[in-house]
Amino acid sequence: MLFHVRMDVSLPHDLDPNRRAELVAAEQDRMLELQKLGVWPHLWRIVGQSGNISVFDVPSNDELHAFLSSLPLWEFMRVEVTPLAQHPSDLAAQP
Amino acid sequence: MLFHVRMDVSLPHDLDPNRRAELVAAEQDRMLELQKLGVWPHLWRIVGQSGNISVFDVPSNDELHAFLSSLPLWEFMRVEVTPLAQHPSDLAAQP
Amino acid sequence: MLFHVRMDVSLPHDLDPNRRAELVAAEQDRMLELQKLGVWPHLWRIVGQSGNISVFDVPSNDELHAFLSSLPLWEFMRVEVTPLAQHPSDLAAQP
Amino acid sequence: MLFHVRMDVSLPHDLDPNRRAELVAAEQDRMLELQKLGVWPHLWRIVGQSGNISVFDVPSNDELHAFLSSLPLWEFMRVEVTPLAQHPSDLAAQP
Amino acid sequence: MLFHVRMDVSLPHDLDPNRRAELVAAEQDRMLELQKLGVWPHLWRIVGQSGNISVFDVPSNDELHAFLSSLPLWEFMRVEVTPLAQHPSDLAAQP
Amino acid sequence: MLFHVRMDVSLPHDLDPNRRAELVAAEQDRMLELQKLGVWPHLWRIVGQSGNISVFDVPSNDELHAFLSSLPLWEFMRVEVTPLAQHPSDLAAQP
Amino acid sequence: MLFHVRMDVSLPHDLDPNRRAELVAAEQDRMLELQKLGVWPHLWRIVGQSGNISVFDVPSNDELHAFLSSLPLWEFMRVEVTPLAQHPSDLAAQP
Amino acid sequence: MLFHVRMDVSLPHDLDPNRRAELVAAEQDRMLELQKLGVWPHLWRIVGQSGNISVFDVPSNDELHAFLSSLPLWEFMRVEVTPLAQHPSDLAAQP
Amino acid sequence: MLFHVRMDVSLPHDLDPNRRAELVAAEQDRMLELQKLGVWPHLWRIVGQSGNISVFDVPSNDELHAFLSSLPLWEFMRVEVTPLAQHPSDLAAQP
Amino acid sequence: MLFHVRMDVSLPHDLDPNRRAELVAAEQDRMLELQKLGVWPHLWRIVGQSGNISVFDVPSNDELHAFLSSLPLWEFMRVEVTPLAQHPSDLAAQP
Repeated sequence: MLFHVRMDVSLPHDLDPNRRAELVAAEQDRMLELQKLGVWPHLWRIVGQSGNISVFDVPSNDELHAFLSSLPLWEFMRVEVTPLAQHPSDLAAQP
Repeated sequence: MLFHVRMDVSLPHDLDPNRRAELVAAEQDRMLELQKLGVWPHLWRIVGQSGNISVFDVPSNDELHAFLSSLPLWEFMRVEVTPLAQHPSDLAAQP
Repeated sequence: MLFHVRMDVSLPHDLDPNRRAELVAAEQDRMLELQKLGVWPHLWRIVGQSGNISVFDVPSNDELHAFLSSLPLWEFMRVEVTPLAQHPSDLAAQP
Repeated sequence: MLFHVRMDVSLPHDLDPNRRAELVAAEQDRMLELQKLGVWPHLWRIVGQSGNISVFDVPSNDELHAFLSSLPLWEFMRVEVTPLAQHPSDLAAQP
Repeated sequence: MLFHVRMDVSLPHDLDPNRRAELVAAEQDRMLELQKLGVWPHLWRIVGQSGNISVFDVPSNDELHAFLSSLPLWEFMRVEVTPLAQHPSDLAAQP
Repeated sequence: MLFHVRMDVSLPHDLDPNRRAELVAAEQDRMLELQKLGVWPHLWRIVGQSGNISVFDVPSNDELHAFLSSLPLWEFMRVEVTPLAQHPSDLAAQP
Repeated sequence: MLFHVRMDVSLPHDLDPNRRAELVAAEQDRMLELQKLGVWPHLWRIVGQSGNISVFDVPSNDELHAFLSSLPLWEFMRVEVTPLAQHPSDLAAQP
Repeated sequence: MLFHVRMDVSLPHDLDPNRRAELVAAEQDRMLELQKLGVWPHLWRIVGQSGNISVFDVPSNDELHAFLSSLPLWEFMRVEVTPLAQHPSDLAAQP
Repeated sequence: MLFHVRMDVSLPHDLDPNRRAELVAAEQDRMLELQKLGVWPHLWRIVGQSGNISVFDVPSNDELHAFLSSLPLWEFMRVEVTPLAQHPSDLAAQP
Repeated sequence: MLFHVRMDVSLPHDLDPNRRAELVAAEQDRMLELQKLGVWPHLWRIVGQSGNISVFDVPSNDELHAFLSSLPLWEFMRVEVTPLAQHPSDLAAQP
């Protein structure tokens, strides 16, 4: 089941530099891990911004929330989730 | 080059039913045509809405505008375009 | 799987009165039908408005879209869907 | 009498960790207590966010405000309250 | 129980003049009626606008919705309802 | 002359607790004082929020600003003022 | 007493051309009349728009509403009123 | 003197086709004319939209308004004007 | 050439009190100076707020920016500038 | 390929003054460098604000993001990117 997810990341400028570096490294590790699991099939940078637009493929809402809230930068993100369905004009949906 | 495109379609309720049917059929034809060309790799229905979220893959801004404005429902859409770049944590970007 | 759905209905004032009456009657029939199916467990009127706040319980995003777009007033609604998950402080989630 | 309540929680990143832990624990205790009282019949996590969508069932506006402002995280929340009424197409409202 | 209500009225310019006159007259009659009933203690014109800011005093959400939707201009209004409680610094609330 | 005033109060979480207590006590004193003067005839708590909706009755714009800016929490408030006029359907305005 | 007033005018494109011409001429007459009365000391065109930014000088809120609603294009305007006070750094306010 | 201008054009779908064709042709003529005059140095299409982003170079606000309101599609546009100044880091501004 | 300027001032609560006092005094000095120069013909307090609505009269956009950015509180303001033109119904514009 | 870019800069007031001076100097150096490269053909100050409106000319979305994120003040900016195409009424586009 597909979900469109937009994440806007905003790190406070007075965050301790070591904690920042640790968080950012842990974030990348977790992002790669979730992609390897197959639940995060699309991940794009929004040009000019520090956030991303993603598509998640998960079996349920609860699992999607669990994956998103497992991200180390979770508390510094604004996340917006939009459920997706197959479009009737999608080539893959044609008989 | 990838672009995130959101299209919100709003057909006036007093549109002539024949014209509506023709437009909707022509729209689907053109949507399939652009997908077959390879410039419209992702197309999803937004759950509960009559619009879509798409990703286009085109060589330039001018070509993207030409493709979008060739859609038969073009004059009844609100379209919002967001340029995308490769994300440094994308699995495909890892060395 | 639960989804929070807000529907705002806006019928054009120049809609033919007979068509309006038919649509409104058909809408109520379909609303009752979906409730009987068990996919629409909560339906509330927003005080002072002609829309509703609802909770749907469906197996997938695709089915949710199919149910929503089957409503006779579908083309006169603005619909906003928010996926819900179990809250860790929900009484029902306690060990 | 039913009210739709949306709570968005935002804890400052420089809050003392001990105070944070105490507040979060106290919050959960109070949330369970209000659910046991029967005044908070529905509580859902919004997927991807740290807030919730809830339905309260209280005898009056004043009591609703008293319950909400008794939450330990009250000063860190943005709360939006929408009064609900029975919907005429609610299955439970049919004769 | 008090509710703050803001009504913004917007009559279509192509409404039949007779129907408009009838609606406006009926609206005023119903407004006076509800005030005489005691459920609409405050009614003010917003300077420069065709709407009003009001306070209703009703025993329940359901009754408030019934009163508001009984207004003849109901279908031409945008209505926003905000529940009110006693303020702890209200002079009338002092011991 | 009546004015609708909405005040949204937002105290910084790192404000010194003693200063906070002094400010809040001083605020309540001033609120009572202005009500006794007769310039603040209505004061309501917005359910679920730390602000209020009020009606002021003052002889001029300048005096309204002087009263509002004399509140001890003035620098922590967002204040929105809407001028009110007598509504032609107000029961008190009928001949 | 001064009020900042912003008027945005929006005439429907299908308004009868004669009625439009009459309304526009009557509007200008009334605008000049109110300026001669001294209640409309400032009137500016917003560059690129069909509306205006104005300052009114009136003895009361009720009179301001009466003047504004006497404009022939009143029903085609969105009007926003902001009460003004003397600024403490205004040269004219210096001792 | 430079001004950033954004024009969003919205032609009503029920506009007479002949009038539409005439207006669109006249609009293009006037756009070319103003460019030849040198007052409209930059004109770009916003990808996916029927509007444009432009830069005007005019001696005064009054002349800018005169040019903009001389466009044949003027009554169908929403126009937003932002005054520009030389940027201190502009290469052309370096000593 | 006239420009409508709205300034919203927001001083951080943890600003050093001496620096705050110096800045506020310097701001008033500069405000009076610019008024004496004749470039700031109108300055009004927005009732209930810490900002102002002003009209500037300057020969160019560049000079307007230079004056605005010379204000000592410049870095604590949100400033919005709207170019003004003579209104065709302005009494002063009549033949 | 052209892109419209708006940058709004917001430096925290408690940033260390030396770090601020270094960042601002480095920012100007990088801005000049990118202009010399030819990728930043237009750069304007928005009157009354600390941001800019720019046009970039780059071969791809990825390069645009690389240039923007190389700015020393990058983490203190809100950046909004809009892709541009040739306008059919651009004088340069005429046959």
